[in-house]
Amino acid sequence: MMKLVLVRHGESEWNKLNLFTGWTDVDLSEKGHEEAKSAGRLLKEEGYDFDVCYTSYLKRAIHTLYHILDEMDRAWLPVNKSWKLNERHYGALQGLNKSETAEKYGEEQVKIWRRSFSIKPPALEADDERSALKQPMYRNVDKALLPANESLETTIERVVPYFNEVIKPDMQAGKRVIIAAHGNSLRALVKYFDHISDEEIVGVNIPTGTPLVYEFDDDFKVLRSYYLGDQEALKARMEAVANQGKKQQ
Amino acid sequence: MMKLVLVRHGESEWNKLNLFTGWTDVDLSEKGHEEAKSAGRLLKEEGYDFDVCYTSYLKRAIHTLYHILDEMDRAWLPVNKSWKLNERHYGALQGLNKSETAEKYGEEQVKIWRRSFSIKPPALEADDERSALKQPMYRNVDKALLPANESLETTIERVVPYFNEVIKPDMQAGKRVIIAAHGNSLRALVKYFDHISDEEIVGVNIPTGTPLVYEFDDDFKVLRSYYLGDQEALKARMEAVANQGKKQQ
Repeated sequence: MMKLVLVRHGESEWNKLNLFTGWTDVDLSEKGHEEAKSAGRLLKEEGYDFDVCYTSYLKRAIHTLYHILDEMDRAWLPVNKSWKLNERHYGALQGLNKSETAEKYGEEQVKIWRRSFSIKPPALEADDERSALKQPMYRNVDKALLPANESLETTIERVVPYFNEVIKPDMQAGKRVIIAAHGNSLRALVKYFDHISDEEIVGVNIPTGTPLVYEFDDDFKVLRSYYLGDQEALKARMEAVANQGKKQQ
Repeated sequence: MMKLVLVRHGESEWNKLNLFTGWTDVDLSEKGHEEAKSAGRLLKEEGYDFDVCYTSYLKRAIHTLYHILDEMDRAWLPVNKSWKLNERHYGALQGLNKSETAEKYGEEQVKIWRRSFSIKPPALEADDERSALKQPMYRNVDKALLPANESLETTIERVVPYFNEVIKPDMQAGKRVIIAAHGNSLRALVKYFDHISDEEIVGVNIPTGTPLVYEFDDDFKVLRSYYLGDQEALKARMEAVANQGKKQQ
């Protein structure tokens, strides 16, 4: 039996400001740091341990992982970072707030971008300061691979192959894996593991800072999955995420 | 021309208490965290950038590196951790303070252990709770390789091959490397790079939290080496380390 732990990063500075974040590299808020530490304490209390860790290139996920490892006294574990685990790229919406976006594109259009599986928000121009092409962190990535905007569908198209090619072999070699990532890169994995339809996955909300455990058999069939921690508090957090989802992503 | 940056971790909790630390996994003190951040700001101001980072398994070095990367906005860089870059293993002295040690073994003997190149302190017993064999962080390391005590000489015998086999190839491939490590693992590298004699190296003190830059030609001959930052403040810090060295290591 193989176990995998997924953790969505805690609240970021831009969650508080209600801005579209995507690939913008904002850090955790004070609350987000605390959420990450509490996820680490929970994993420790429940007796979890890991052999290898994965996270994205974005500091809100990296710092979430580091807090977890510090709380578990596992700072020495190997950590692999990949842009393939980044949040969905929100294109030209990145950095805009909800009312700016609604004003510029109309309420209905914004609803479509947020709720659609396959429709992308407007692309960032290559010369836009926000473009991935302008960020040092992608300087070693093939430019042709870097998105200027993504739907949940195209996010899945980079996350799932990365899981299969890089992470799965570690698990099959008996390694215990934790992935600290983002709402949409984790949705990609959850959809893939649980065979969730395109329509349904856009309504699936993963609470922040809450370890989500998957157990697989040797054929990578899901045996069961569950969130760790107090189930009442969890329910409140899932509702909070669902409500936040109504305002932004 | 190849450049390499070495940084010794900032003050740890046990430096303050004047205890022999070695492989004991104590964290940075508040001052140590600040020293690390200021090393990061200095590297950023001076225009440094890296492609790959190395550190030990010990959290005081790992956290030093993380602070540096955060200050440089480079949290996404790959980080390789190895026990081969750990501090010198201080054997049965680990966790003892200076006066306890002097009482137990005599002042003269303690002086010899601290100042000798090749004499090891007493070994830790395999069933001692402090033994590396008891620490989860070495669970994947060949037990035959794990020391129970080290001299500076035997520390060098693990650090220099690791540099040559793992780090040097990265540099030869054109990668810019930073190593965040410890007083004695960095002494090992400095001795190797600068061809310092066994007698002289025990008197070489590397100040904490101060980037030490080496420039090499293609044959790995040192062209020059220098500390970054205010040279007056540096002098004061080197004296502090030298004085601390009189009390403990």
